[in-house]
Amino acid sequence: MDRTRVRRALAATEALGLVLIRGWARTRRESKGLVFLEINDGSCLGNLQVLVAEDSAAWGGLGEVSTGAALEVVGRHQASPAKGQAWELHAEGLRVLGVADPESYPLQKKRHGDEFLRTIAHLRPRTNKYGAMFRIRARAALAVHEFFGQRGFCWVHTPIITGSDCEGAGEMFRVTTLPPGEVDLAADFFGRQAGLTVSGQLEAEPFALALGDVYTFGPTFRAENSNTPRHAAEFWMIEPEMAFADLADDMALAEDFTKDLTRRVLADCGEDLALFERFVQPGLLAGLAAMVEGPFERVSYGQAIDILAKAGRQWEYAPQWGADLQTEHERFLCEEYFRRPVIVFDYPKQIKPFYMRQNDDGRTVAAMDLLVPRVGELIGGSQREERLGVLEARMGELGLSAEDYWWYLDTRRFGSAPHAGFGMGFERFLLMITGAGNIRDVIAYPRTPRHLGF
Amino acid sequence: MDRTRVRRALAATEALGLVLIRGWARTRRESKGLVFLEINDGSCLGNLQVLVAEDSAAWGGLGEVSTGAALEVVGRHQASPAKGQAWELHAEGLRVLGVADPESYPLQKKRHGDEFLRTIAHLRPRTNKYGAMFRIRARAALAVHEFFGQRGFCWVHTPIITGSDCEGAGEMFRVTTLPPGEVDLAADFFGRQAGLTVSGQLEAEPFALALGDVYTFGPTFRAENSNTPRHAAEFWMIEPEMAFADLADDMALAEDFTKDLTRRVLADCGEDLALFERFVQPGLLAGLAAMVEGPFERVSYGQAIDILAKAGRQWEYAPQWGADLQTEHERFLCEEYFRRPVIVFDYPKQIKPFYMRQNDDGRTVAAMDLLVPRVGELIGGSQREERLGVLEARMGELGLSAEDYWWYLDTRRFGSAPHAGFGMGFERFLLMITGAGNIRDVIAYPRTPRHLGF
Repeated sequence: MDRTRVRRALAATEALGLVLIRGWARTRRESKGLVFLEINDGSCLGNLQVLVAEDSAAWGGLGEVSTGAALEVVGRHQASPAKGQAWELHAEGLRVLGVADPESYPLQKKRHGDEFLRTIAHLRPRTNKYGAMFRIRARAALAVHEFFGQRGFCWVHTPIITGSDCEGAGEMFRVTTLPPGEVDLAADFFGRQAGLTVSGQLEAEPFALALGDVYTFGPTFRAENSNTPRHAAEFWMIEPEMAFADLADDMALAEDFTKDLTRRVLADCGEDLALFERFVQPGLLAGLAAMVEGPFERVSYGQAIDILAKAGRQWEYAPQWGADLQTEHERFLCEEYFRRPVIVFDYPKQIKPFYMRQNDDGRTVAAMDLLVPRVGELIGGSQREERLGVLEARMGELGLSAEDYWWYLDTRRFGSAPHAGFGMGFERFLLMITGAGNIRDVIAYPRTPRHLGF
Repeated sequence: MDRTRVRRALAATEALGLVLIRGWARTRRESKGLVFLEINDGSCLGNLQVLVAEDSAAWGGLGEVSTGAALEVVGRHQASPAKGQAWELHAEGLRVLGVADPESYPLQKKRHGDEFLRTIAHLRPRTNKYGAMFRIRARAALAVHEFFGQRGFCWVHTPIITGSDCEGAGEMFRVTTLPPGEVDLAADFFGRQAGLTVSGQLEAEPFALALGDVYTFGPTFRAENSNTPRHAAEFWMIEPEMAFADLADDMALAEDFTKDLTRRVLADCGEDLALFERFVQPGLLAGLAAMVEGPFERVSYGQAIDILAKAGRQWEYAPQWGADLQTEHERFLCEEYFRRPVIVFDYPKQIKPFYMRQNDDGRTVAAMDLLVPRVGELIGGSQREERLGVLEARMGELGLSAEDYWWYLDTRRFGSAPHAGFGMGFERFLLMITGAGNIRDVIAYPRTPRHLGF
C-alpha cells in the first residue's frame, strides 16, 4: 500500500478510502472509548486527525503513543463532522515506529520561545512555526531558480575558497590545512593565504561577459564579531550579473525579482505565512500584497539626503552627503516617507567599492540599494566600471594592486561591455516575507560568534 | 529598441525585421566589399552571421572589430542563402563597445588545449566548448531543483562551517580567524575548532525527520592532497534524505533522479551536447539515450565480488569480500559485464560509515553505490540506522563520542523512523553527461592542491 501524505489527505476533494499514513503524533487526547491523535508528516502545516476506537485493531498499538512519536496508521479517510477540518482518519491499524518519552522529549504541546528553540535547532523544524519557516525558505529558494531559469540566466557556481578578498567587503575567515601554530604558508594546501568568499561577484562577472546573463546562489561569509539580529557569519546570497545592462536595467531586475519571489511564496505558502501573520507579524500579508502591486520608489542618494534633512526629525546620525545611510534613515524612507520599497541610486563614490561605475559628475557612482520596510537594505548593486582606464585609476587611488586583479582587468581589456548586477541577502528576504526579527531563526543551523553547534 | 538574443534570432520561424544585437565577434572575414562577422552573445552555442556592406552606415565602425570585441549591431534579420544557417543579419549600424587587441587577446580562432584554458578560467567560457559546458552545468543544476521541487522535497541549506567531521569522510580544511601562529582556540571566532563541511547529511537528517523529504545542494570540501582528474578540493554535492524510506526506496530515487536529470539536459542542451559528442566523446549521445531507456542493474556486493572473481581477469587488486571495490572493478561491472549503470548494495559494514543501517546478517549494512560507465561511482547512499541502541553500539565500536553527536542521537531518541538518503557528486554527473575527462574542466574556477587562482 503506497503512503499518502498528510497534505494530500487534507486537500482531498473526495474520500480516499483506505490509506496508509506515516508521520509524528503532535497531540493525543482521550475521550470515552476513543483516542484522538493529530498526525503531522511535514508535508504541510496542518495535522490529520486520527480517531482510534477502543474496539478497533489499532487500539492495541496506542500504548507508546505520545507527542513526538513516529507512527504508521492504516485507516479510512472520510469526511469529518468536526469543525475546522474537512477530513479525518478512522484507524484500523496502528504501529509505533519510534517513541518519544514524555519525560525527556523537549517539544511538549506548548509554545516555546525562539531562544530556547535555537538550542535545539535539530528539533525545532518539528514545531509548527519552524516547519512553516523552513518550508517557506525552501519555496523561496526554489523560486530564485525558477525566476532566473525562466529568463535564461545561467547559474554559476563561483568558488567558496578564494585567494582574493573581493572588495574588502568584510572580515574574512582563513582556510588552512596547517596545524595550529604552523605559519609556513608555502606548506599550506594552496601554498598561499586562502579565505572564505564574501561575494561571488568578481568571479561571476567574467561569466556574464561570456554567457550574457548569469547568477550565483550560494553561501557567503563574514568573520565580523557582531552579535545583532541581522548578522550571521554564514548566509546565502543571490548575485545576478547581466552583460549589456546599465543601472536602470539593474534596478528593474531588482524590483521584478523581489516581487516575483514574493508572489510565488504568497501563492504557494498561504497556510504557512498565515501562521506568521497570526503569531509573529500582524499585517504581514496585507503588506506583502501591497508591495507586489505597487511600483517601487526610485530616488537618488542626493534627493534622499535632502528628504532626510528636511524631515524635521531628531536623528541619531545627522543625514549628511557623503555618509552612508543608517538604518534609521532607511526605515524612515520606506516606512514613513514613501511607505513602500525604495531604490536609492547614485551614491557618493567614496562609500562604495572600486568596481562601481563612475558617473559623469565625478563624485557619484552608478550604485543602487533596495530598501524595504522593517528590514532596511535587501539588495545592493551597481553598474560595473567597464572602462579599463577609469577602473585602473580608481584602483590606484584605493591602493589596490593591479597584479592581484589581473584576470578581472582582463575582462575590461578584451571585449569589455557595460554590465550590471546586484546581491540579495537571501536571509534578509526571509526576514521580510515572514516578519521574523532574528536572522538566527531563518537559518537551519545559524553560525555566529562562538556559536557552532550541530 | 529592445535587444534580441542570438538564440532567438537563430531559432526564429519568420524574419524579425530590424533588430538590435549585442555580443562578441567570434570571427571576421572579408570578401570584396563585404565583411562577415560571426557574433555570439552566450545565449547559445551558435553564432549569428552579420554582413556589413561597404556602402552601409555600419561600415565605418568596423575598424576596431576583431575576434573578441564587444559589439552592438542594428540590422535587418532575414533568411540566409548560405548553407548551414537559416538566418543572417544585414547590418545598418555598428558600434564597438570594447576592443580586443589581436596581439594580446589569448582566444584567437583556433582550438586551445584544456590545460592552457585552465590558466585562463576567466576567459574560457568565451570558447565554444566551455560556453557549452557551463550552459550544460547551469541546466543540470536547475534540473536538480525541478526534480525535487516537483516531488515536494524541501531544499535545506546545511551549514558549510561545521564543528563536527561528519563521518570522518575525509580530510577537513580548518576555518579560523586567528592570525597565523596563534594557537589559542578559545580566542578563535567560534571558540573551538571549526572546519569546512564534507557532507551535509548528518545535519539534513533532522530535517527529514521533521519535514519528511528534504535535499541539500551545496559546496563540500576535501583537503586531500590528491592530484587526479576526479578530485577537487571544492565541489558541489546533492544529498536527498527521505523519512519513512528504506534502501529499496533509496535505490529507486537514485535511478529516477539520474535519469530525470539526464533527460532534462538531453531535451534542452542538444546543440551543446552535440559539441561534446563530436569533439570529446564520440558515442556520448547514444549512450545517454540508452541509459535513460533501460533499467539500472541491481546487484549485491556479495554477488558483485563473485562476478569479479569469476571474470577470468588479471586484476590489479584482487576482488575480495570485505575490501572496497576499485575503479577497475566498478568499470568492469558497468562497462563490460552489465553494460549499463549498476547499483551495488549491502556492503560489508567495516568499509562503511557508522550511520548506515546494519542488516540482519550482522556483517553488512544497507548501503548502495550507483556506478556508471566511464565515471565509476556517481552516487553513494544508504538506509540510516534508526535504532538508537544499535547506533550507539556501533559508535562505541568505532570510538565515536556519543557526547559529540548528542543532537544526532536525539533524532533516534525521539520519534525515530526509518529513513534513507544518498549523495551525488554534481561534477561526477557532469563528467558523465559531457564525456569530459577532468573535473577541472567542469568547474568554473577549480580548487586543487596549490591551485587557488582567480
